[in-house]
Amino acid sequence: MGTSANGSPDGPGVITVTASRSYEVIVGENLLKDAGSYICRVVSPAAAVIVSDDNVAPLYGQAVAASLEKEGISALLWTFPHGEDSKNASTLFSLLEFMAEHGITRSDLIIALGGGVTGDMAGFAASIYLRGIPYVQIPTSLLAAVDSSVGGKTAVDLNAGKNLAGTFYQPRLVLCDIRTLDTLPDSEFSCGMAEVIKYGVLCDTELFDLVKTGDARRHLDFIIRRCVSIKRDLVKKDEYDTGSRQLLNLGHTLGHAVEKLSHYTTSHGNAVGIGMVAIARCAYAAGLAPSDCSDDIAAALSAYGLPTSCPYETAQLCEVIRRDKKRSGQGINLVIPRQIGDTYLYRMDIDQLEVFFGKCN
Amino acid sequence: MGTSANGSPDGPGVITVTASRSYEVIVGENLLKDAGSYICRVVSPAAAVIVSDDNVAPLYGQAVAASLEKEGISALLWTFPHGEDSKNASTLFSLLEFMAEHGITRSDLIIALGGGVTGDMAGFAASIYLRGIPYVQIPTSLLAAVDSSVGGKTAVDLNAGKNLAGTFYQPRLVLCDIRTLDTLPDSEFSCGMAEVIKYGVLCDTELFDLVKTGDARRHLDFIIRRCVSIKRDLVKKDEYDTGSRQLLNLGHTLGHAVEKLSHYTTSHGNAVGIGMVAIARCAYAAGLAPSDCSDDIAAALSAYGLPTSCPYETAQLCEVIRRDKKRSGQGINLVIPRQIGDTYLYRMDIDQLEVFFGKCN
Repeated sequence: MGTSANGSPDGPGVITVTASRSYEVIVGENLLKDAGSYICRVVSPAAAVIVSDDNVAPLYGQAVAASLEKEGISALLWTFPHGEDSKNASTLFSLLEFMAEHGITRSDLIIALGGGVTGDMAGFAASIYLRGIPYVQIPTSLLAAVDSSVGGKTAVDLNAGKNLAGTFYQPRLVLCDIRTLDTLPDSEFSCGMAEVIKYGVLCDTELFDLVKTGDARRHLDFIIRRCVSIKRDLVKKDEYDTGSRQLLNLGHTLGHAVEKLSHYTTSHGNAVGIGMVAIARCAYAAGLAPSDCSDDIAAALSAYGLPTSCPYETAQLCEVIRRDKKRSGQGINLVIPRQIGDTYLYRMDIDQLEVFFGKCN
Repeated sequence: MGTSANGSPDGPGVITVTASRSYEVIVGENLLKDAGSYICRVVSPAAAVIVSDDNVAPLYGQAVAASLEKEGISALLWTFPHGEDSKNASTLFSLLEFMAEHGITRSDLIIALGGGVTGDMAGFAASIYLRGIPYVQIPTSLLAAVDSSVGGKTAVDLNAGKNLAGTFYQPRLVLCDIRTLDTLPDSEFSCGMAEVIKYGVLCDTELFDLVKTGDARRHLDFIIRRCVSIKRDLVKKDEYDTGSRQLLNLGHTLGHAVEKLSHYTTSHGNAVGIGMVAIARCAYAAGLAPSDCSDDIAAALSAYGLPTSCPYETAQLCEVIRRDKKRSGQGINLVIPRQIGDTYLYRMDIDQLEVFFGKCN
């Protein structure tokens, strides 16, 4: 899997994603003040709606708005209460009504300025407003930078579960200003690190070795480019998530169940970390992996204060997984690590799950 | 423009739509009882959710459910209150929650059984549930049969206007049982006839001449196949409505304004008819058409009891059109009839609209 990213040593790195729409992910320092200029290279909106939560808007909303106005784009800021609880139909349709009331047309633009919740929801809004208008991702969390801002998965939650309604809809541009990550609380940074460690386990031993000691903050530029490059390769092969893109779900099947059982008090990163450790251990126990890499994964997670052991019973977890949206028919695709840097998809019958996860819990 | 449709003289006609997904539109008599069998030719769901309103569900819900069960597909019927008022975010997300609660997966199916509201909303739900699952259209109104069930436009209304949120998402199959149109009230039948007349004005003088005298009920099979064939050709050329598909909006720009100003007490068909007469008259007055075909259009509409004159002032109409979603930047694309069977797209500056429509109102 190629993981190259272009860009001059001092300037921003540019990674081109090739999917149903091609676009650039630009990674660098102090890009926010030039957001309008970067945007004008790919779209020509008369107006842009900046979607942001009440944590991020006060920090960066004004800088992005000013950069747009400088390019003659009229900027509207739309803010919602931060947190997963806002990622629902009600917030989504409030945004759509706001856009309609302000006469936003198909040639205008949505900008997602924030973390995963903001990006998922603003992207969803862009994909359905007037049956689709352009949008740009400006991730300000590590999780959004390395994962959710790239690849075009958009969503809101239903009462019945997370991300159950959404679309595949690619942005026109992803602009990742690494300096915005400086303001992240440690817990949110760690949450993103679970996904970074996931990329390492998935297919990149060099990345894994770099971050496992706990000093990822010193290498953010390299780390983000590397993760985005891996994601680019998987999205290119399988935009609609019916094959190899599912490798990105490493740790997520069990992780989603942990999140759900905790009533979402366990963060996504914490849950994915727990899920990775468990699947590695169970895969070895079941003879699906030649070695047990769960201790290595657990050590890397611990270096960022992330939990590694699962607080729920196998039976509880399996009951939730049976309702997992990734299930189709009687089977579910699990992502199995053979060793650090080497994973594969394995289709398991739903009825075998409890025995499989029972081996290590 | 080719308008052929295949099928044996006695059996159902089959029209193949080629878009991002290819699928068949099957038009014939007494198809409902074999719906399950037709569906199994293109998908293999374990379960299907039949979406229908409280008018249509009691008439045909059981027949479709039975035909599914016969093929081993478990059928769930989900009913909502009939009418445009239901076509909103609240109904849409009630349906999505229902599907999630019943464990519907990506390999299951949604069936839209009903008119335009049902098809638009069920199609929208299918396009966003788990980021997209298969759906089948079974239109039971003339409007749905000749227009909304084919071509993959899905939508719900916002408070700010009709169809402002939606997707492009093609069905796997359209199954049109002409016998279901027998139960249509005359007013609903007429509403569909406005769209049929539109196809005639658009590009088919033979169709126009056949229906203009008022006895369309005698030729329904031919009429539906002909309209679907025209739509197929336009969708093939321009699935995402950025070019020639916009010809289907003939009469709709002014029509939508009429609907809106009437607070949707004027039906879509009535409004489109009024819009067609007005645009034909104004186009001639403005020198954009060599002859005035508005009287011919008005006569055909009158044969089905449809109104032909616009009850609103030009200034009111233009204020609404300025907010039309089809507007992009400073212009709006109007569909201009040169004569019956010959139309073209004309881009007009928003500021010229009032003078243009003022010429004939």
